[in-house]
Amino acid sequence: MTAPAHTSVDWVAADWGTSHLRLWPMGTDGVPLERIDSDQGMSRLNADGYEQVLLDLLAPYLAAETALDVICCGMVGSRQGWREAPYAASPCAPPSFDTATLVQTEDPRLRVHVLSGVKQLAPADVMRGEETQIAGVLVADPGFDGVVCLPGTHTKWVSLKDGAITGFSTFLSGELFQLISAQSVLRHTLAGAGWDQAAFESGCQQGAARPESLANALFGLRAGALLEGLDPVAARARASGYLLGMEVEALREDWQGRPVAMVGENEIAQAYATALRLQGASVEILDAQDITLAGLCAARAQMK
Amino acid sequence: MTAPAHTSVDWVAADWGTSHLRLWPMGTDGVPLERIDSDQGMSRLNADGYEQVLLDLLAPYLAAETALDVICCGMVGSRQGWREAPYAASPCAPPSFDTATLVQTEDPRLRVHVLSGVKQLAPADVMRGEETQIAGVLVADPGFDGVVCLPGTHTKWVSLKDGAITGFSTFLSGELFQLISAQSVLRHTLAGAGWDQAAFESGCQQGAARPESLANALFGLRAGALLEGLDPVAARARASGYLLGMEVEALREDWQGRPVAMVGENEIAQAYATALRLQGASVEILDAQDITLAGLCAARAQMK
Repeated sequence: MTAPAHTSVDWVAADWGTSHLRLWPMGTDGVPLERIDSDQGMSRLNADGYEQVLLDLLAPYLAAETALDVICCGMVGSRQGWREAPYAASPCAPPSFDTATLVQTEDPRLRVHVLSGVKQLAPADVMRGEETQIAGVLVADPGFDGVVCLPGTHTKWVSLKDGAITGFSTFLSGELFQLISAQSVLRHTLAGAGWDQAAFESGCQQGAARPESLANALFGLRAGALLEGLDPVAARARASGYLLGMEVEALREDWQGRPVAMVGENEIAQAYATALRLQGASVEILDAQDITLAGLCAARAQMK
Repeated sequence: MTAPAHTSVDWVAADWGTSHLRLWPMGTDGVPLERIDSDQGMSRLNADGYEQVLLDLLAPYLAAETALDVICCGMVGSRQGWREAPYAASPCAPPSFDTATLVQTEDPRLRVHVLSGVKQLAPADVMRGEETQIAGVLVADPGFDGVVCLPGTHTKWVSLKDGAITGFSTFLSGELFQLISAQSVLRHTLAGAGWDQAAFESGCQQGAARPESLANALFGLRAGALLEGLDPVAARARASGYLLGMEVEALREDWQGRPVAMVGENEIAQAYATALRLQGASVEILDAQDITLAGLCAARAQMK
């Protein structure tokens, strides 16, 4: 069987994170031939498992006579990943293809490149994958002077000016929320799903105004359920709002008077956008996959 | 077998919490005959299991001809406990024996009384057991005008004036710390035990100064371990300090210019005392068991 795309593949863009792998085989005309989504993220793989994943997923695109370039960003380049790629030190421009790490594969039909991450020494912080999204943001708007928010379990906030990362910070609010919801004494107080926008916004305001009271506000949800029958969906939204209100408050110096680019359109990104707008921030929402692919394409362009 | 104390038992004081049970059979001279410690706390028992626990542990003190009074405080009186006891509503004096709930036992040799808890409606909060410790503090110092700290997984702070509880708040910082240490991405970054006083104090100062940055400071410990080899014991102490620094800051209005009575001498109580003193609070440490027993004895005195 010959895949229809076989003759026209030029290279492959790969976003390889902790829990997911996304591949875009790119045509010679610069347009993706398809998008391949896989759950073969770093957390499921040993170092010797990555190559086979690519061989399986990219089989229709491999040719005996030439090596197919695969340009990867993300946790694939971490110490626990396929091959550790270095960190550039912030402040810096997003690392270019020049500092990519070539991974030796056993199969000569693959030529895999892992892009560098970025580290910050004071205060200590790291990113892997988000630097490529930052490169994508800068493709669309080279002069962007503001903050990029990359929401997730560990949300990153990256300050940009003159085409460079001037500083960044990671907040594990999403992980805290998951632990509180599923593992704490509040697990019966907070609903597992559902949303109450008013309760969320009220939580945001409280978290911004009284961040030091987090551990009391959380217990108060349990007491509210006990004494007043607080609705579990409202309790969930309020807890989430409290954490995001704190986080947005912590970053006030970064976003005050500057635009925020929110990379992502899912529920978490919408919640962050609400929390920011409540405090008066100006937020533009960008498509995360478009941005990631733009960053990988920028690296490919530097390769030629 | 006749226990030596058999003829002289007057009543039994019982501190029955979520994870522990402590019994003091009291002599007619007002002195405990012994202290019985058990792990048969509320979390291990169904409603029909409590009576047998008392029958087993108090067997040497039970007599056919008279019912032995057992006065209990704690989670035994919660909805998930033996019998739900009501809450008094704060502001109020610690509930007296008059509002104790008599629990009907099958064995006529027992007469069990469960003391009321205290609730607060705005903001919603509850206590069960701590109100009896508050009564104990007031036995020792009836005019105490300050804050009582009852440290634990869920620490309670109780403001007292003119013999009454004027307000209180519960912080689940201890539970957050346990979740972060054992379940989060930091589980390999934070040591399971050990202490670094300087790191703890630095964490306290950070948490008090930048409470809104909690989720970033926690991620920073992981990044510090990755980039700078941050010591896991120092990371543990710093995370604990951050949470306690936030908590102490949240309560500043309560303790500023007023004495703090710390009920407990264990590591957690010492850590709270340090966090308070760093912010300029005046702290006196009291023996938790003495205080609890004094509160139960005060209830017994009201019974006669």
